[in-house]
Amino acid sequence: MNMISVGLVGVTGYTGMELTRILEGHPAMRLTRVTSRSEAGKPLREIYPFLQGLESGEIIITEPAPADLAAHCELVFLAVPHGAAMETAAALRDKGLKVVDLSADFRLRDPAVFKAWYNSEHSQQEYLKEAVYGLPELYAEAIAGSRLVANPGCYPTASILGLAPALRHGFIESDGIVIDAKSGTSGAGRKAAVGSLYCEVADTFKAYNLTKHRHTPEIEQELSLVAGREIILSFNPHLLPVNRGIYATIYGRLATDASLEAIHAAYTKAYASHRFVRILPLGKLPELRNVRGTMYCDIALALDQRTRRLIIISIIDNLCRGASGQAVANANLMSGLPLESGLQFVPMAP
Amino acid sequence: MNMISVGLVGVTGYTGMELTRILEGHPAMRLTRVTSRSEAGKPLREIYPFLQGLESGEIIITEPAPADLAAHCELVFLAVPHGAAMETAAALRDKGLKVVDLSADFRLRDPAVFKAWYNSEHSQQEYLKEAVYGLPELYAEAIAGSRLVANPGCYPTASILGLAPALRHGFIESDGIVIDAKSGTSGAGRKAAVGSLYCEVADTFKAYNLTKHRHTPEIEQELSLVAGREIILSFNPHLLPVNRGIYATIYGRLATDASLEAIHAAYTKAYASHRFVRILPLGKLPELRNVRGTMYCDIALALDQRTRRLIIISIIDNLCRGASGQAVANANLMSGLPLESGLQFVPMAP
Amino acid sequence: MNMISVGLVGVTGYTGMELTRILEGHPAMRLTRVTSRSEAGKPLREIYPFLQGLESGEIIITEPAPADLAAHCELVFLAVPHGAAMETAAALRDKGLKVVDLSADFRLRDPAVFKAWYNSEHSQQEYLKEAVYGLPELYAEAIAGSRLVANPGCYPTASILGLAPALRHGFIESDGIVIDAKSGTSGAGRKAAVGSLYCEVADTFKAYNLTKHRHTPEIEQELSLVAGREIILSFNPHLLPVNRGIYATIYGRLATDASLEAIHAAYTKAYASHRFVRILPLGKLPELRNVRGTMYCDIALALDQRTRRLIIISIIDNLCRGASGQAVANANLMSGLPLESGLQFVPMAP
Amino acid sequence: MNMISVGLVGVTGYTGMELTRILEGHPAMRLTRVTSRSEAGKPLREIYPFLQGLESGEIIITEPAPADLAAHCELVFLAVPHGAAMETAAALRDKGLKVVDLSADFRLRDPAVFKAWYNSEHSQQEYLKEAVYGLPELYAEAIAGSRLVANPGCYPTASILGLAPALRHGFIESDGIVIDAKSGTSGAGRKAAVGSLYCEVADTFKAYNLTKHRHTPEIEQELSLVAGREIILSFNPHLLPVNRGIYATIYGRLATDASLEAIHAAYTKAYASHRFVRILPLGKLPELRNVRGTMYCDIALALDQRTRRLIIISIIDNLCRGASGQAVANANLMSGLPLESGLQFVPMAP
Repeated sequence: MNMISVGLVGVTGYTGMELTRILEGHPAMRLTRVTSRSEAGKPLREIYPFLQGLESGEIIITEPAPADLAAHCELVFLAVPHGAAMETAAALRDKGLKVVDLSADFRLRDPAVFKAWYNSEHSQQEYLKEAVYGLPELYAEAIAGSRLVANPGCYPTASILGLAPALRHGFIESDGIVIDAKSGTSGAGRKAAVGSLYCEVADTFKAYNLTKHRHTPEIEQELSLVAGREIILSFNPHLLPVNRGIYATIYGRLATDASLEAIHAAYTKAYASHRFVRILPLGKLPELRNVRGTMYCDIALALDQRTRRLIIISIIDNLCRGASGQAVANANLMSGLPLESGLQFVPMAP
Repeated sequence: MNMISVGLVGVTGYTGMELTRILEGHPAMRLTRVTSRSEAGKPLREIYPFLQGLESGEIIITEPAPADLAAHCELVFLAVPHGAAMETAAALRDKGLKVVDLSADFRLRDPAVFKAWYNSEHSQQEYLKEAVYGLPELYAEAIAGSRLVANPGCYPTASILGLAPALRHGFIESDGIVIDAKSGTSGAGRKAAVGSLYCEVADTFKAYNLTKHRHTPEIEQELSLVAGREIILSFNPHLLPVNRGIYATIYGRLATDASLEAIHAAYTKAYASHRFVRILPLGKLPELRNVRGTMYCDIALALDQRTRRLIIISIIDNLCRGASGQAVANANLMSGLPLESGLQFVPMAP
Repeated sequence: MNMISVGLVGVTGYTGMELTRILEGHPAMRLTRVTSRSEAGKPLREIYPFLQGLESGEIIITEPAPADLAAHCELVFLAVPHGAAMETAAALRDKGLKVVDLSADFRLRDPAVFKAWYNSEHSQQEYLKEAVYGLPELYAEAIAGSRLVANPGCYPTASILGLAPALRHGFIESDGIVIDAKSGTSGAGRKAAVGSLYCEVADTFKAYNLTKHRHTPEIEQELSLVAGREIILSFNPHLLPVNRGIYATIYGRLATDASLEAIHAAYTKAYASHRFVRILPLGKLPELRNVRGTMYCDIALALDQRTRRLIIISIIDNLCRGASGQAVANANLMSGLPLESGLQFVPMAP
Repeated sequence: MNMISVGLVGVTGYTGMELTRILEGHPAMRLTRVTSRSEAGKPLREIYPFLQGLESGEIIITEPAPADLAAHCELVFLAVPHGAAMETAAALRDKGLKVVDLSADFRLRDPAVFKAWYNSEHSQQEYLKEAVYGLPELYAEAIAGSRLVANPGCYPTASILGLAPALRHGFIESDGIVIDAKSGTSGAGRKAAVGSLYCEVADTFKAYNLTKHRHTPEIEQELSLVAGREIILSFNPHLLPVNRGIYATIYGRLATDASLEAIHAAYTKAYASHRFVRILPLGKLPELRNVRGTMYCDIALALDQRTRRLIIISIIDNLCRGASGQAVANANLMSGLPLESGLQFVPMAP
């Protein structure tokens, strides 16, 4: 098969790490450049011993340099912090490369909203217009035609997929939605920080950033487009002592006389042609391990008859579906490959 | 000091285990009888090696027998499953003993509600009338005068303490309350069950019993009394991969013009004389480890201005505050001891 | 490709669960029968929701019946407890099927040793003579020609691979070897048992079965064959609060003047043609997560100059390499497929 | 009671954190100064919310200043990194304060050994001569008369207590001892470091610093004194995904005809008057949770008859017995208090 050469800018974080795992087994992409300022000069297997004996373990990490990336890659994944991605994405686009940006820099369509939540001006508003929001279940066609994809956040991926059918069909009121979300600790990144130490996270649990998490406007933006009117919701994240996973328990006020069975049927139909979204049978509830390391979004529905509330649970693996796997899915579409190419992981339990 | 002789019926579960820990260090109670059908004849240290070298480790476990308990104890803790507790409680009360029942058998005041949620008739309705709901912050006086205390459930303890001031002051609407609750795995008990195995719980997360958990009517019963009108709410539990803890994230629709600061002040005042409830400073969010092994209920408040929602987080240790520690607090009150006697544990972190 | 039909007897344990994961993605094997007495009649996805949407999720579990298995399978994996496997293996062999037995029943070549450690007579000594010990690095050729493979234990797989080169080359004394081994909790199986509950395993650690674990004679049998003289060693297992993994830290008294570099070179050479054994560079130490979900055995060497001791660390995933993955590797060889067929998993971290 | 005023230099690490927990409940010591350069000016409860509502939560953290400490304290605990402690200890001793140093600075009696393992000159050799090694079971009398105590390391505490009776009685050979030790992650400290992140430690396991851990000479120094001849041993640490605990599995070659029962009796006798050392009954093996948060050292013995090896397992809580609790025990002795004052914690399980 004709292999597509891809680059990875920023390999030391968990999303970079996960990209090396996924790309090592990709049948149609070859990782040709991996960059990190701090680790340049080392073979990848030295920082990631799990790659010893595998092809990509021998790749020598380089300094990030747009010209070098342009010379060796057709498409580049940006796995660097928000703010930093913006300039690099522009530089790479200027050189004609396709870019999948895993940061938040191109997700919010309105630069004013970006400024309000990220406290800084968006410096690449030209490219912002070009960027496509990379949620394949909503935008597969646009992604396929795009050269700059804004890879969705982990919480938004689970939340939007979980809520979209309910809002599209008007099963719930558009106001009063509450998302109680729980994230595995890899979501906090791989930077050295006391708050992410094993002894600060294990055998405990806590909420964080209540009412002000930056994924809120991203969820609202996309759901407003789905619903056809402005959605304002309450999004509240918690930190789980697990490695991977987003567990979004979503509460909406019922706005229909449809039975739970009918709502379930509508969800099943909505995702019938989307293999990576699995609607669980009624009565089953999702477990994070069933999506671990995969592209699956598992969704369950329950109806609290006593309070007329529809409960939607939507879960993903934050690193694979919520970041690097979805980035590869987008790259697949941008490259004319099947969405699922290199992404057919079978969940591992336990 | 004059030591009060107490008995423990049902020692093999986690609440029985926790009672042995607490009573070992109690300055005014002495454990004189410990019963278990399956372990009778063994010294306590054989099944709980953590008690080796301690006084209670040498207690020989006996078969449960009301006459024997009556001969050796003034007060008995029942740490047996619901249904089983009912008859034993009655038998012990018949013999004049004081009883703290950790099961659900005497918590619901209305036998019809009991039947609806527990699928069986209540066989001891006479004693049901006598029982006092053992939440000291609400009923200290009644508990002190009672001889049969229904020890609250773990979820209800956290939920009621978290919501009581908001409902009493009318800070939130009485309908539309959502409790998204997360419990440590010890809440599932110490019975051999595949679903509680390490490899089924570790590094994963799941909801369970959505919309139908039996703690729901208990929470509603007590909050209805607090609010002075019927409260129907949505209660939704999840299983956390931690040993101990209840983390209740509670969402209510704001029904006041009061500022968050004013609400916070009201909460602080409500619990000013209750040392085991700690209202966190605004901006701080609770962590399970800060209450681990203790009687504390830590409560934090946040206001989602965008959606006019008050978020109350209320957390406890399910085994100590949510079961055995609270049982000892009730026993203290019933025995004329200070509430905090033997219960002044300093949280251990990490 | 021509698909080989395989059966799985005993699907409810962790090794059965892992076999369903591996076989789902196998390019040349198709699972056609899955049996369980307790779960017969259900589709596989009902007991293992992680298989929803995947081909094998739709397989209906059946009662185990040799005639039915013979009618639908060429090869059968036995994932049932030791003792139970013996009879089933014989029945399936009688019907001409190839069998990979994951239990201990055919591992010990001497029935007297079996009796001494398992407290029961071996009832199928005829087939015992036929069985091949399924460690591909030692016996690939014999496995390829065999119709009954005794799949090695998890501890033996790590221990034998770690020690074989040292004993073959005489780098260490043949007596005085100590194996301090640590196992993930899935090694304790998926049966309901208090000792395997989350709250009995998490945030703690313990040794078990010191000096009397049944994997001891299996390790000694194979290493004695490698060394050409009788090996008696001290094997001591511990239970780790992790899902998967065997971590064997092996201590041997140095019996050579060879440098650590020379010993390392000999190990590297010994496994040069065995892709699933990775000798780490000197100075690197293994981590369980680097082999999680894979066939890799990662081995590191250290020399304690002060005490003239060679330390060999050998690690595997107990469920994949130590059981189900190795079973598939053996089945591959027995079926004329490449060893690594369907087994090229890239480790996932974190 | 007359309260002894104590100070704590370095509160932000786990040993400092643990000292605040222990001292909060101490009946005869009052924490009057707590220092940290980075957190000065804040009340203790702000950095440790578990102390909210408790007396020491209101202490304002100050900059470390010997004159200030001398003005407010009789005794000071140093919970700062090795190297840094040396100068501070000397300054405080110069001002007449009693000092318990939790670092390694005064543990090695020979400055040449210190230099060899810590790569720096010992700058306070005068005070080194004065320092007493603070293991109460060995040196209670000297500690009581000392004004500078070198608090033992966590691994040495478990290892020395486990091996001392065997070496004193000659039950094992003095050479050939192997210690395979496993430590909870709090042993790695509370500094921000990628290697200690939750996602680098949870659900995995690894050895580290094999053959070169700095606790080796400390163990050898003390055991050589016990044995009356030079002990050189192989010490090999591993990192456990648990919060607290040291689990030392110790292998020695049997040098006696004494039965296991006789050896067990000798151990029991050796520690008969030491309440914090518990010799488990034969057949029982230690579990970390049984010592969690306490001063206990639990020791078990096993005999591998086939290899003539005595296996000693010795476990402690690294933060309490292996650091801060032992520091308080030493301070108790130095202050004329009973050893166990403020330290009678009952283990909490789960």
